[in-house]
Amino acid sequence: MTGGARAATLDLTRDAGALTADLVDIESVSGDEAAIGDAIEAALRGLPHLRVDRDGDAVVARTDLARAERAVVAGHTDTVPLAGNLPSHVDGDLLYGCGTTDMKSGVAVALRLAAAMAEPVRDVTYVFYDCEEVEAARNGLGRLSRTHPDWLAGDFAVLMEPSDARVEGGCQGTLRVDVTTRGQRSHSARWWRGENAIHAAAPVLDRLRAYTPRRPVVDGLEYREGLNAVAITGGVAGNVIPDACTVSVNHRFAPDRSEDEALAHVREVFAGFEVTLVDSAPGARPGLDKPAAASFVAAVGGEPRAKYGWTDVSRFSALGVPAVNYGPGDPELAHTPHEHVSLAKIADCEARMRAWLAGR
Amino acid sequence: MTGGARAATLDLTRDAGALTADLVDIESVSGDEAAIGDAIEAALRGLPHLRVDRDGDAVVARTDLARAERAVVAGHTDTVPLAGNLPSHVDGDLLYGCGTTDMKSGVAVALRLAAAMAEPVRDVTYVFYDCEEVEAARNGLGRLSRTHPDWLAGDFAVLMEPSDARVEGGCQGTLRVDVTTRGQRSHSARWWRGENAIHAAAPVLDRLRAYTPRRPVVDGLEYREGLNAVAITGGVAGNVIPDACTVSVNHRFAPDRSEDEALAHVREVFAGFEVTLVDSAPGARPGLDKPAAASFVAAVGGEPRAKYGWTDVSRFSALGVPAVNYGPGDPELAHTPHEHVSLAKIADCEARMRAWLAGR
Repeated sequence: MTGGARAATLDLTRDAGALTADLVDIESVSGDEAAIGDAIEAALRGLPHLRVDRDGDAVVARTDLARAERAVVAGHTDTVPLAGNLPSHVDGDLLYGCGTTDMKSGVAVALRLAAAMAEPVRDVTYVFYDCEEVEAARNGLGRLSRTHPDWLAGDFAVLMEPSDARVEGGCQGTLRVDVTTRGQRSHSARWWRGENAIHAAAPVLDRLRAYTPRRPVVDGLEYREGLNAVAITGGVAGNVIPDACTVSVNHRFAPDRSEDEALAHVREVFAGFEVTLVDSAPGARPGLDKPAAASFVAAVGGEPRAKYGWTDVSRFSALGVPAVNYGPGDPELAHTPHEHVSLAKIADCEARMRAWLAGR
Repeated sequence: MTGGARAATLDLTRDAGALTADLVDIESVSGDEAAIGDAIEAALRGLPHLRVDRDGDAVVARTDLARAERAVVAGHTDTVPLAGNLPSHVDGDLLYGCGTTDMKSGVAVALRLAAAMAEPVRDVTYVFYDCEEVEAARNGLGRLSRTHPDWLAGDFAVLMEPSDARVEGGCQGTLRVDVTTRGQRSHSARWWRGENAIHAAAPVLDRLRAYTPRRPVVDGLEYREGLNAVAITGGVAGNVIPDACTVSVNHRFAPDRSEDEALAHVREVFAGFEVTLVDSAPGARPGLDKPAAASFVAAVGGEPRAKYGWTDVSRFSALGVPAVNYGPGDPELAHTPHEHVSLAKIADCEARMRAWLAGR
């Protein structure tokens, strides 16, 4: 076990809401998942019906009952940066704190299933991985798909991303570009000798404000695109006309467009500006017509809808594993300072997943 | 002597151009002036006709000949951040490198005068100080005026800021404000739940682009104001709608306006936005009608003009010491990556200053 001395202790017999709070209180902003990885690994190693593997801060556990079908249940352990929202606290039915909805409640349900379901009707592989909230190149599931693709093999995957306990089909793609303006440095007291690159970025922001995103219907589900500045930087010193300004723009695109098509669209929006691709990940079409997905939907109930956020269903899709999103968190609250989750929804989600794995 | 073991060696008998190169090659971006301060202190301590004092990284040396008049010759030793322009190099008559014009050529002339003029017709105080290129609160001359005002006493001051070897009267004031826009964080895949603070900064940049600065005439000299973004920052993470964006704006204002009047003007330009004052320093009217200034102008020759940049003449002005700008550097080249200075102008400036101190 790596770094076991530092691991907090997780008790997988506590109810899923309490276990969610325990997980939330182990701070794990992307890149800092060693402690939570250690805690998960330690808790699972004690279970005789699981084989446990580790790669970096990712932990993979599986039953090996030679069932006809293998399901993958997956969740990421990292969170976005804190916003003054730790430690967690409970207010009535709601648990507040960074990662409550996205997605330590889903991780808690998966851990509870892993501990309690010693003989599921289908073999299950539980995947807990790092660095989902940062650029695609660092994604822990992406790393596993390169280093240990066999660990991810299965007939169907449930990614426990926040979906408000409804099955969400497919996902939107996401890409980031840097839109950079250039100028010429000079002393700001003699500004006419220079050319202000920050002022030159005004039309970039104007185009973002004026942009109207598409809402296309794909395989019966409506998606909702977006084009947003997520960062802006420029400046040399307090008395220097800046010679560069970079607007980092995130485009979320529906799964009827490929990454290349989406990038071409972004380049068109910023025609005349220097546009550099930073990061890109494809969307996934809903795929609910596939039999494995349809049987899961039937087991847990409810009306499927489109997934707006990019999720690793796209990665499973690329590996040929049909996958849906299903988790207790509310996606509308993800990454907000007042992020929270309903304790009742966590329990309900666990009960439906148990029924599915028990074949009831 | 502070940190003497680290001091580079300066030879004040080398010609002023070579000495400028030696000073330029001692890197001294604001806040990192210990090495250059040590070198200057060591070089001056060896001269029997000077008393040498030190305060932090500032070095002050003076003759004490009981002359009827005392002149102050001052220059700062720091530079703006490097722009790939060190070490220095010579091309024909031009010396290139960070700080060549602003203002190590002026410092070299002052050091040459300090070493060579053992019996000037007026007593002279030479002031070499730190942190001129950063916010006013850190300014070394400001610190000396609080800790050792007696060191700065005099009847007239020459600040050897780049003036292209012409006497420049007064200076413009400068202030910086942060113009901040606020929004609401959300996941960028569900951007409609948030409010993008970077997009909200578009009108701030639009107003800067549309702004037309004044060119007022004050005491017969024309000034040229400016209003420029010098930095912009915003962003939380690559998938989060940002909740704040700050544009740092530098206003350069003519000496017919006080700091308060200039700030009121800036607030008017950004009406409707959150404006926070960061830093402010007053301008100085030309003041060439004062006798000490007039006699210096007569000695060195040429037609005085307005000083665009803020300089510490304003600080001397506040201490009741009439002051002008006069130095060999070209102010238009200050803070540019291709900063350079004419070796002939350095020599000419030294010759004129020698004539003035020799009473010729």
